Amino acid sequence: MKTWRLTNVCPFGGVASTVMITDGRISAIAPGAVPPDGTPVEDGRGMLLLPGFVEGHTHLDKTAFHLPDWLVNQVGPRIEDKIDTEREWRARTGHDAGAASLALARAFLAQGTTRIRTHVDVDTSAGTKHVERVLQTREAMAGLQEIQIVAFPQSGMLARQGTDALLDAALAMGADIVGGLDPCAIERDPVRHLDIVFGLAEKHGKPVDIHLHEPGTMGAFSLDLILERTRALGMEGRVVVSHAFCLGDIPERDRDALLARMAALGVAIATTAPASRLVPLVAPCRAAGVTIFGGNDGIRDTWTPYGSPDMLERAMLIGLRNNFRRDDEVAVALDCVTGAGATGCGFDAYGLEAGARADLVLVEARSLAEAVVARPTRRLVVSGGRVVARDGVLLA
Amino acid sequence: MKTWRLTNVCPFGGVASTVMITDGRISAIAPGAVPPDGTPVEDGRGMLLLPGFVEGHTHLDKTAFHLPDWLVNQVGPRIEDKIDTEREWRARTGHDAGAASLALARAFLAQGTTRIRTHVDVDTSAGTKHVERVLQTREAMAGLQEIQIVAFPQSGMLARQGTDALLDAALAMGADIVGGLDPCAIERDPVRHLDIVFGLAEKHGKPVDIHLHEPGTMGAFSLDLILERTRALGMEGRVVVSHAFCLGDIPERDRDALLARMAALGVAIATTAPASRLVPLVAPCRAAGVTIFGGNDGIRDTWTPYGSPDMLERAMLIGLRNNFRRDDEVAVALDCVTGAGATGCGFDAYGLEAGARADLVLVEARSLAEAVVARPTRRLVVSGGRVVARDGVLLA
Repeated sequence: MKTWRLTNVCPFGGVASTVMITDGRISAIAPGAVPPDGTPVEDGRGMLLLPGFVEGHTHLDKTAFHLPDWLVNQVGPRIEDKIDTEREWRARTGHDAGAASLALARAFLAQGTTRIRTHVDVDTSAGTKHVERVLQTREAMAGLQEIQIVAFPQSGMLARQGTDALLDAALAMGADIVGGLDPCAIERDPVRHLDIVFGLAEKHGKPVDIHLHEPGTMGAFSLDLILERTRALGMEGRVVVSHAFCLGDIPERDRDALLARMAALGVAIATTAPASRLVPLVAPCRAAGVTIFGGNDGIRDTWTPYGSPDMLERAMLIGLRNNFRRDDEVAVALDCVTGAGATGCGFDAYGLEAGARADLVLVEARSLAEAVVARPTRRLVVSGGRVVARDGVLLA
Repeated sequence: MKTWRLTNVCPFGGVASTVMITDGRISAIAPGAVPPDGTPVEDGRGMLLLPGFVEGHTHLDKTAFHLPDWLVNQVGPRIEDKIDTEREWRARTGHDAGAASLALARAFLAQGTTRIRTHVDVDTSAGTKHVERVLQTREAMAGLQEIQIVAFPQSGMLARQGTDALLDAALAMGADIVGGLDPCAIERDPVRHLDIVFGLAEKHGKPVDIHLHEPGTMGAFSLDLILERTRALGMEGRVVVSHAFCLGDIPERDRDALLARMAALGVAIATTAPASRLVPLVAPCRAAGVTIFGGNDGIRDTWTPYGSPDMLERAMLIGLRNNFRRDDEVAVALDCVTGAGATGCGFDAYGLEAGARADLVLVEARSLAEAVVARPTRRLVVSGGRVVARDGVLLA
């Protein structure tokens, strides 16, 4: 049994406390100091203690984050332009989803992110290659970072025959979650698309996470069909809708009716909180009992030059998008990349409590809000009880 | 005559060039190296060269950036709540606008900002005290940073008798610009408010910069009245409208009619590009010939915990708000805190060209877009020909 102590840290900005870590888990966490007993001690010097961050929606496989040359973005405005540009760029350049995902996963860990849900492209051009490579990254990071892989039909599956069989194969080889994409706007046959997605979920006994960019009543219709299938198949608590822009874009009364159904079915929302379009707002979702959590979406890829492996930056962007100014509101933005992220993605043994996996982040900040707005250097990152980074730099 | 050379730098990400600096100005800037001639040389090691940044709209006087304790925000949602909370907090705590503005101005300089327009509160509680103290900061920073002071009636002037005389006094003692505030929504008498503002501008021969938060057609009406007075008083090129949220909030046809009038009158827009509300978008403003430039607004004050003395962060937020993804679009976001900022505020001798003040920033970035999205450490900051900061730290 390996035990050590992290002393003089302020959990969520509270009173100075001691964390006991035993065999990779928090065995105790309590205010005050603990008399020396011979176990090794790390002095937290009064810093703010947070649980390891949760990246709830990203695309590790498609980043250009690790490439020597800057990827110039000249892509057109439509979503189809972005999808086609990306698939062709990946094929043409031989972009390696393994090296890409590993570099970005490590950068996330250095900044304190210990759990990641990543959507990995599956299409008839690349087959399941990207999933295979990200599975290798998941293996390489095992014990350091928990990575959930969504088998994601980025290029659609109805217009590209054979994609469903590739998704089936990706799930068989270890992908954790069935992905889907804009059942009306991209797929143009929502029932057929969703029946395949939910059919695969049923066959493999795996959860679902569907990209839903569709605005307004079209998106609300797709969401309605998703909720219908969630209930019919008994998939309560196992469905995430990513983006769900439509919920920012329909009358509040209609939104609230959908949120009530989502809450009853345990359907969660992943949001990137983009500044340039209407989005599901965090406060009404939480008030309705719907879990809403944060993610970058793509990071420095053919879609966007933005994004960062720093989840405190995403918390800041969620705060800005939701006009969260009070300290208690900024704490909610932070929850979107910590507790709510773990709940929404189903990461277990999470948090700053006895029994949780010892995933810990220390920063110099006088409050939770300061941690979000100033995004200070990660002085210490602990994953599974091991110190993995200091001062923003990975130790191995 | 003091001359030195900055070699091997890439202006705006272009080809490696040499900058000659003589008596604080750029005397030459050209691709390639220059044979040694005995003048001192600083090697730019191929880094990206940008002109000093322009903060076009902030409130140096009201920040809590420099205080030892974190300022907990519990303020109510209305603009009046924020105004009253702030005025009372400043009076109660004896908040010192001199120390506040100096600390923040120095932080801006360390991050490469060499020109700042700051709106300084003038009200019947504090009188002109805050302006007096920021004038001292302007004096302390002279030669290092150019600071424009707007005498700003934050608490309104119609409901608080005597504010107009205080503004008059602030302008007489050295404030550069006449401020104004929501002529309808706050002041409740747009003609009387604007007649005082433009009357003071005429009396002192100084430009105008009006905070216009008003949404929709109310804001458009106030803007209409501002444009009417700009023309009647021959104040073309000397009026800025800050925020101008209404331009994001009215039909495009009405917006474009207002933009055409603004372009003809040289009325510029300062934007903070907030993510949580409708804003004037950069592309249509520029297409209409209207200068639109960026600023933080308040930084870590009673209004907001957000904001940063890093103008590359503001460029990123402008890019995100405007959905600027292509490299050429991200360069426009950067222009909002460089060239367009200087044009809009009327800072002269600006830019990377012979004759301009030698205000220079060096960063490690492979492109303009990378400088914006990654916001790398400022390796070198030069102001008025002097090296003032290295690696993000002020030298004096």
